[in-house]
Amino acid sequence: MPAPTDHTVRRMEVARAAVHSIARTGLEGATLREVADEGGWSVGVVQYYFRNKSELLIAAVDFLADQTSELMSNRPEAENVMVSLRKVLNQIILERGRHGANYWKVWICFWAQATNDHLLAKAVEDHARLWRQRLTTVIEEGQRDGSVSPDVDAVSYAAYLAAAIEGFGITSVVDPECPLGSDMIDRITARLSSDDLSGLGSASRS
Amino acid sequence: MPAPTDHTVRRMEVARAAVHSIARTGLEGATLREVADEGGWSVGVVQYYFRNKSELLIAAVDFLADQTSELMSNRPEAENVMVSLRKVLNQIILERGRHGANYWKVWICFWAQATNDHLLAKAVEDHARLWRQRLTTVIEEGQRDGSVSPDVDAVSYAAYLAAAIEGFGITSVVDPECPLGSDMIDRITARLSSDDLSGLGSASRS
Repeated sequence: MPAPTDHTVRRMEVARAAVHSIARTGLEGATLREVADEGGWSVGVVQYYFRNKSELLIAAVDFLADQTSELMSNRPEAENVMVSLRKVLNQIILERGRHGANYWKVWICFWAQATNDHLLAKAVEDHARLWRQRLTTVIEEGQRDGSVSPDVDAVSYAAYLAAAIEGFGITSVVDPECPLGSDMIDRITARLSSDDLSGLGSASRS
Repeated sequence: MPAPTDHTVRRMEVARAAVHSIARTGLEGATLREVADEGGWSVGVVQYYFRNKSELLIAAVDFLADQTSELMSNRPEAENVMVSLRKVLNQIILERGRHGANYWKVWICFWAQATNDHLLAKAVEDHARLWRQRLTTVIEEGQRDGSVSPDVDAVSYAAYLAAAIEGFGITSVVDPECPLGSDMIDRITARLSSDDLSGLGSASRS
């Protein structure tokens, strides 16, 4: 007899298959049958967990957003917040941007679909708010461990970071020749750090 | 007999109608017939200028991108570059974000469609590159008029600005409660200015 948690795991596997399917074929191509093929299941399996594509898309947004939140949660205790935050930004912006632009391609598809689907728009908005709150909390933790300047307004800076991250993500898809390197992480975190990073605007750092 | 330029003007009017139609109904809903209705024309008029929806979408991207470039071109000669740039950023990010989120909604639809349409992707990428080049030129002009710090790497800063602008645009659509105010314009231009804007990270400016 399958353990009860198997259902949760399988449901998440279907959501992940939907993300991969969207990355490969776009949102329109990612039909329930296509997602079933992606995971090697029958369509019935997908339909057991999701009554329609709209429900499946919401689960796919949940899956993608949770993946990103987890990056932030797996911080080694010994590491200060600024070091961890730069690593996470590096992963989200540079690694996913360069080698995994599909991550951002899928988000673009979700955002576009959300302009026409209120339930999906709500899911996207909820995750955006949670992400900003998570960034706010991280900045406040950094103020407690001394790595983030006490002068920073955590809520406002988190809003800026969230927007900048999305901007870099979009850019990696729509303008792949745009020079986005680690100097961009320096730019968006320079005023956050309690260390003085001087000369960030200068040619020497770019 | 109509003047030859009438064709250029009408073609642009059809492209503009497509943008309005996408803003209202989304990309799928914006059929050639819908766009014709938007402008009060017969479908034949739209088909005279555009053989298919793909061609129309490219013209719509051109129309939207040109609108933004024009903002940058209409700079009063007496105004220094930093003052002009802040005004333009204010228009693109804050005014269009708050009161005209449809502008950014339409861009999101174009970006999503471009992930599946090579010709549209090329049009989007071309405009993104031109926009970065325009921003680079503006920054260099600012270095000549003394309002932009000579230490700034114009190419790298333009890339950062272009990405940040898109990020704020997306955020105004997908996360409308995100606090984006004029402090965000200060944040992204602070290191550009030859004036010292101190305390930008502090709560007092947010």
